[in-house]
Formats: sequence, structure tokens, C-alpha cells
Amino acid sequence: MAEKIVGILGGMGPDATVDLFQKILRATPATRDQEHLRIIVDCNSKIPDRTAHIISGAEDPWPYLHESAQLLERAGVNLIVIPCNAAHNWHDRIQASVKVPVLHIMQATADHVQANYPSVTKVGLLAVPATVKVGLYHRAFANHGIEVIAPDKEHQELTTKAIFAVKAGDSGPEGTALLIKAGEHLIAQGAQAVVAGCTEIPLVLKDGDLSVPVIDATRALATAAVKMARGED
Amino acid sequence: MAEKIVGILGGMGPDATVDLFQKILRATPATRDQEHLRIIVDCNSKIPDRTAHIISGAEDPWPYLHESAQLLERAGVNLIVIPCNAAHNWHDRIQASVKVPVLHIMQATADHVQANYPSVTKVGLLAVPATVKVGLYHRAFANHGIEVIAPDKEHQELTTKAIFAVKAGDSGPEGTALLIKAGEHLIAQGAQAVVAGCTEIPLVLKDGDLSVPVIDATRALATAAVKMARGED
Repeated sequence: MAEKIVGILGGMGPDATVDLFQKILRATPATRDQEHLRIIVDCNSKIPDRTAHIISGAEDPWPYLHESAQLLERAGVNLIVIPCNAAHNWHDRIQASVKVPVLHIMQATADHVQANYPSVTKVGLLAVPATVKVGLYHRAFANHGIEVIAPDKEHQELTTKAIFAVKAGDSGPEGTALLIKAGEHLIAQGAQAVVAGCTEIPLVLKDGDLSVPVIDATRALATAAVKMARGED
Repeated sequence: MAEKIVGILGGMGPDATVDLFQKILRATPATRDQEHLRIIVDCNSKIPDRTAHIISGAEDPWPYLHESAQLLERAGVNLIVIPCNAAHNWHDRIQASVKVPVLHIMQATADHVQANYPSVTKVGLLAVPATVKVGLYHRAFANHGIEVIAPDKEHQELTTKAIFAVKAGDSGPEGTALLIKAGEHLIAQGAQAVVAGCTEIPLVLKDGDLSVPVIDATRALATAAVKMARGED
């Protein structure tokens, strides 16, 4: 069975796109260039802010997401991944607009937690307010009988601040400190693992930074994409 | 004037493609996602080895390079960059096959050295044997009155070994040590700067590792691409 071409519908933000790209390379067994997958990336950072649309009705990113998915399909990709959690609010519409499968980051993450941390029944969610609001993580984990808890207002604001600092090019220790504070707040409420549910978060919060496992949703998506592309799913 | 869409004809190797992608982001003044350029990447690691073709007549990468350039042009890119020095052996044919400009890494590098190190008259070249053999760096620097020197057989072998270790996923200190040895050998012969003339080299050899400036050809290409895309060239 021929390897599939991976399409990355990216740019939200660009550094998170680089991060997923790199995690796909690291998840691929390869000792020379030619053993890697073909990957086509549309890093369209012009896509309007997902959070601003969901929370306050700013410009709808949908026409841009649709155009990018079409571009990737025309370019010949066989599957699509989207390194932006909040953009998964449009996952069903994107999937309906193309013939190739569009992987789902929340589902990949919930599957990963169930497979690797079978005793976990409650996870904490660090994400932008839009991702928390639309409840996609809640639903994906509920399918596996796992409860999702989100930060209170104060700790959500720390999380959002850390995420937008990364988008502004600042991946320094201040963002890590904010996320650790928000993460430990979730752990104090019973979270047995904390999901880095915004693709900017793994750039500053790593597994080991908290007293429970940090679940890297971007890596879960990368692993799922490599398995599908290599026909191992 | 509208910003241009950058196309990356990549995959040679994939980590070098990520490196150029990241250097384009860092060379772009941006404080939020939407201020970044749109970048479309074809990371086609299946393109046959450039060195193997030039040195020993293995499969010709040209049909693959041609197909990737066409794909990027159809996707709507307004300029193309190629994060592989050896692939510039086909630069003229790629340029002739598309309507959009294809930047030239050797020219971008020679321009960068002339502008930033005006007293330099002799540079050392660390690259794969194919890049050394085709003489593209020699010609680009000769246009600025700068001489290019390459390692002897023994030090060329150290360089090639370090490059293929990176392609195999090993970016550890051994590769850096090999390149420092080869670089200091060039400096002993009068090189006033050393060009990292293979896109795998900047992943393990940084400015400061040698007693003269290390010229990152990938960064010079990224800077030239951002200038052209923003209409500042």
C-alpha cells in the first residue's frame, strides 16, 4: 500500500504549524530523506482569529479554512491535519467540503490518553476560551468515560495570556510559569493529566513541568497522521 | 502592494525545510498570526538524492523538482525558495519552468556576505561534494570578487559524514565537532568566513562555533525571501 501524502492546514499560528510539521518528522521512522512522508503545508496565517469569532463574532474564518482545504486537496494530499484546536469548531464543515479524511485533534488526544493512561478518569484542559466554550474536548473525552475540567476565570486568563505571548514570538519562561500556575490549579481540583489543548502550549509547556502528565495534543495528532499515512491505522 | 505568497520547494532534507520555514517566520516582523506571510511548503522527501546523481549518475531528481515547482505555482505561490544547496544545480531549469521568481541561495549568500562583511575576500565552503563540484558558490562569490576555497579530501569526508548524520536524525555534538575540524582547516588556509553551504549544516554548526563568522546560507535565503514577499527588495 502506497504511503499517503499528508496535508497540513496551518498558520494558526505559524510556529504551531512548524511544531506539528517537526513532530510528524520525529514520529516517522527514517534514516534518510527518502524514507520520510511527503507533506504539503498551507501555512496561511491570514486566517482570521478563531477565538475572536467564536467569543465576540469577529470575521468568520470559515471561507479561509474552506479555501485552504480545497487548495490542499487540489495539490494531491490524501489526508488533512489542522494544527489549531479552536479551528476544530469547523472540523465537520471542512470534512464535508473535501473527499480526503480530516483527522480530529480532540479525538486523537482522547484516544491517546485512553490507550496510554487507562486509569485516568479526569483531565484538565488548558486552551483558549473558544476551545473550552465549544466543548469539543469534553465530548471527545466523554466518549471514553473521561471527565474534562477547565480553569476558573482567573486561571483561564493566565492561560490565554501565555498563548498569545507565544503567538507574538515570546516563548520565554514567563509563559511557562503562567501555564504551570493554571495547570496546578486544575490538578488541585482532581485532574490526573493536563491536556495542552492549544497548539501554542506545547511550545512552552513540556511533559515534566507539572506534577501529572502533560498531554501534547499536537503530538497525538502527529502520531495519528503518521500511522494513517503509513497505513498502520 | 500586496504581500506575496512564499513557496518552499522542500524535503531535501525535511529538517532543513523546517529550518528555512522557521527562519522565514523569525525574519518576519509580526506580533500576531495575521502579520505573518502565507507560506506554502511542498516537503517532498522522495526527491532522489542530488549528490548521488551529480557524483555517480544515480536517478535524476529533475522530474521531481519540476513537478514540485509546478505544484507550488498552481497552488498560487508568487516566489519559490529551495532549501537545498545541491538542488540549485537545477535552478536554471526550475526557473525556466515557472513564471514566478525562484530565488538563488548562492546569490543570496554572496550578497549577504558582501553587504555585511565588506572586507572579506576569501570564504571557506562546507557543503556536499556535489555542491562543491558544480561550482555555484564559486561563481556567485566571484561576481563580488570573493574567492571560495573548499576542504581537501580528508576534511570533505568529515563534512559529508556530519551532513548525512543530520539527515539520519542525529543532530548531536559529534557532527558539530566534525564540522569545526573541517572549518578550522579552511580558516588555516585563509578563509575569513565559512559558508554553511548545505542546509543540514546550520542545524549543527552555529555562528560562534568557529574563530571566523559562520555564514548561514539558509538564513540569507530566508531574509531575501521575506524582503521580496514584503516588497522591500
